[in-house]
Amino acid sequence: MRVAVLEAAIAELTETGYAALTVEGVARRAGVHKTTIYRNWKDADGLVADALAGRFSADIPIPDTGAVESDLRALARSLVATMTTRAGRALLVTVLSDAVRIPQLADVKRALFDDRFRRAEPVVTRAVERGELPADTDPAELLKALAAPIYFRLVFTGEPVDEATADQAVRVALAAAHAGVLSAGGPGAG
Amino acid sequence: MRVAVLEAAIAELTETGYAALTVEGVARRAGVHKTTIYRNWKDADGLVADALAGRFSADIPIPDTGAVESDLRALARSLVATMTTRAGRALLVTVLSDAVRIPQLADVKRALFDDRFRRAEPVVTRAVERGELPADTDPAELLKALAAPIYFRLVFTGEPVDEATADQAVRVALAAAHAGVLSAGGPGAG
Repeated sequence: MRVAVLEAAIAELTETGYAALTVEGVARRAGVHKTTIYRNWKDADGLVADALAGRFSADIPIPDTGAVESDLRALARSLVATMTTRAGRALLVTVLSDAVRIPQLADVKRALFDDRFRRAEPVVTRAVERGELPADTDPAELLKALAAPIYFRLVFTGEPVDEATADQAVRVALAAAHAGVLSAGGPGAG
Repeated sequence: MRVAVLEAAIAELTETGYAALTVEGVARRAGVHKTTIYRNWKDADGLVADALAGRFSADIPIPDTGAVESDLRALARSLVATMTTRAGRALLVTVLSDAVRIPQLADVKRALFDDRFRRAEPVVTRAVERGELPADTDPAELLKALAAPIYFRLVFTGEPVDEATADQAVRVALAAAHAGVLSAGGPGAG
């Protein structure tokens, strides 16, 4: 039931957008009664947050290959693969076009990014433990340096977004980490 | 006249969005007759492209301080200053929310970024001539590495965007350039 409802929410979000999404519409599409949804989610916002979190985060497995470069490459390639599907692009469009108008959706978006970066942090902390990266590397800073060029291409430049984009993002993020400019508490922190 | 019309176009764009913008509305706001606009611009699209180009590009002066780090810092700080004004944020919102629905606006956005990167390229080519950066550094790649984390914060993470953001973007871009991962024709090119 849960999976069906979350998938219905994603489909509604993609087709009608956040502003027009209703619990009734999601229930109809999922083939459940709306009271079933209200037993599991407080309201449409909570449902959307869960659905987006599922789509944007859980789709990206956290790799543990034993080396930072291949871990980051797997992470970046998963991100590219997720965001360049038709559903991924549709969701990005929904989030971008509606989040700017709807404060709650902006909060959801922010929470999703926080969650995504937190989930991937072990990739960086393990690399630090293995001595592959400077000890004071800030995991969130490195992961943002990895994600930024991929999202920048997706949203702004219109250039192709593919495995080469992912691999290039890894090179830039690792170069910055090795140069010590992604350190926690340093001049570039925050 | 030209300045008044372009400013009126920006104001209309900010307040009503691209989809609802008309040459008539811009003419009324600028206090000119619409035939005056049609004498200078082919249509509303051409007018919007010019207005956005003026706002997004010309506002950012191309520095020439004699050193790559201070040049890039000036560039990044200008970008941050422009994009964090109320008008800058409003315009970003307009472009993001409408560009995804309106193909022509997506083209305008793409052309603007191309133009902006092209205008700033001398900052990188001069640095290469001075021997500050590897000879095969790709100017556009470096400028994108500089812009990406700033736009990523503006659009996605909700974190503050300020001079520290700009300076950190410079550190990351320079670390990548010095590591040789922003080279033209290399594995990371394109």
